Amino acid sequence: MKVAFQGEAGAFSEQAVFGYFEKAESISCESFDAVFDAINSGTCEAGIIPIENSLAGSIHENYDLLLRNNLHIVGEYLLRVRHCLIANPGVKKADIKKAISHPQALGQCAGYLRSHKIKAEQGLDTAGSVKALKESGALDTAAIASRRAAELYGMQILEEGIEDNTENYTRFLAIQREPIIPESDPQQGLAKTSIVFTLNNVPGALFKALSVFALRDINLTKIESRPLQGKPWEYLFYIDFIGAMRDESSQKALDHLGEYALMLRVLGSYPRFKMD
Amino acid sequence: MKVAFQGEAGAFSEQAVFGYFEKAESISCESFDAVFDAINSGTCEAGIIPIENSLAGSIHENYDLLLRNNLHIVGEYLLRVRHCLIANPGVKKADIKKAISHPQALGQCAGYLRSHKIKAEQGLDTAGSVKALKESGALDTAAIASRRAAELYGMQILEEGIEDNTENYTRFLAIQREPIIPESDPQQGLAKTSIVFTLNNVPGALFKALSVFALRDINLTKIESRPLQGKPWEYLFYIDFIGAMRDESSQKALDHLGEYALMLRVLGSYPRFKMD
Repeated sequence: MKVAFQGEAGAFSEQAVFGYFEKAESISCESFDAVFDAINSGTCEAGIIPIENSLAGSIHENYDLLLRNNLHIVGEYLLRVRHCLIANPGVKKADIKKAISHPQALGQCAGYLRSHKIKAEQGLDTAGSVKALKESGALDTAAIASRRAAELYGMQILEEGIEDNTENYTRFLAIQREPIIPESDPQQGLAKTSIVFTLNNVPGALFKALSVFALRDINLTKIESRPLQGKPWEYLFYIDFIGAMRDESSQKALDHLGEYALMLRVLGSYPRFKMD
Repeated sequence: MKVAFQGEAGAFSEQAVFGYFEKAESISCESFDAVFDAINSGTCEAGIIPIENSLAGSIHENYDLLLRNNLHIVGEYLLRVRHCLIANPGVKKADIKKAISHPQALGQCAGYLRSHKIKAEQGLDTAGSVKALKESGALDTAAIASRRAAELYGMQILEEGIEDNTENYTRFLAIQREPIIPESDPQQGLAKTSIVFTLNNVPGALFKALSVFALRDINLTKIESRPLQGKPWEYLFYIDFIGAMRDESSQKALDHLGEYALMLRVLGSYPRFKMD
């Protein structure tokens, strides 16, 4: 099964491809757009896209692409982002004077680098920095990237888990052309449904919209408003709730929400991710 | 007045410093942490931090820093992100074969670059790419950055507004050690208040929490849930509402919310940004 992801081989998104799909051939894409194109055109059967990071927030660009494309969320995957200090073989940790990586990865390891007196140098993406380090053969330099990137390029891991904040998770969505609708399972809470909607700009509109879930004891796991620029009083809302589209309560809630919403779209109904 | 911002001279954050403060000396900081430190230590009287971007989402890191530090939001500023194609003086647009910039800026101009057959090359931050281009003197290369970055380094703007999506806005917050509390102004809607809270994990908890605003006809301009990792059912909520802390309805709503919330913190009450 060919699964598209954005980034270079060894990127965290590629790790999510292998984490989510048992057997997959990962196909590297330049942009998120290209991931959607690969699925639309049939080049890939599925794709994996990051949708939110616990430190950096929701990735609106991917919500936009979900709205613009007619693909379906078929699953979710939560990846703990663990950064490794990676060097050429034979290099000792005491030799390291500087570290190269994507600015976001450097930022997430700033405390570690400071306390080890390692200078940060901005590089390309995380996996690309490992590749560049291998090619340069530098002995006083490390790259910061995933364990997989180190393994892929035959490099040495000097230390794993050097991020300052260990509560660093990225949530990924698996997307495909056809939905895979989970069975109705109203008691167990094993399914999740993701929706997007807009509301009329009247006082209490959001409160009414949320009542459709509260009145049916449906639990929300995410809510986010997003201003529509140029339309200062209009918002998109993203909601994830516990429940499958096949549950009667989900259907009734969405019918009810449809009475208030100007636009309502179900992005997908899928099994909830379970941490091991 | 010294105002701290994250980034190099010419960064979009620096543009927000000059956009928000009439007279300011902008102080460049390496990280968002360093911006907060500069204000805490008194090196700077104020700081400007980005809090959300219309394409990239909320910057949770800065919410975390607002919670960890005892500073106050005193204002907000909305900046339209306009990217420029910047070259060494004398270079013509037809000469440009590649463009360097921060990966996010490249991504936001991907369509433009493709249609002009310009190769994208990842560089450091936007302003740093302009500086590097000036130093290299390359005649076939452009940098993508703000107008101010071009002016700062005496470079030529070949085209302005090359971003694919013009709905690209970043909202910045002005922060200081002491609050500047706006006058009560319940009718005009000229003030905004930002709060963070957590709720007990019981069904309908968020619905109850929102009722404190809906029952008083208080309009929300932002709502966002953020899962607390490692605590799968606990969430932080960020809400911005129209109203000043001095308004009686705001005070009553927050008193009422305090009955449900496990933690509640007012990050600031400040004049609402008005587009020209």
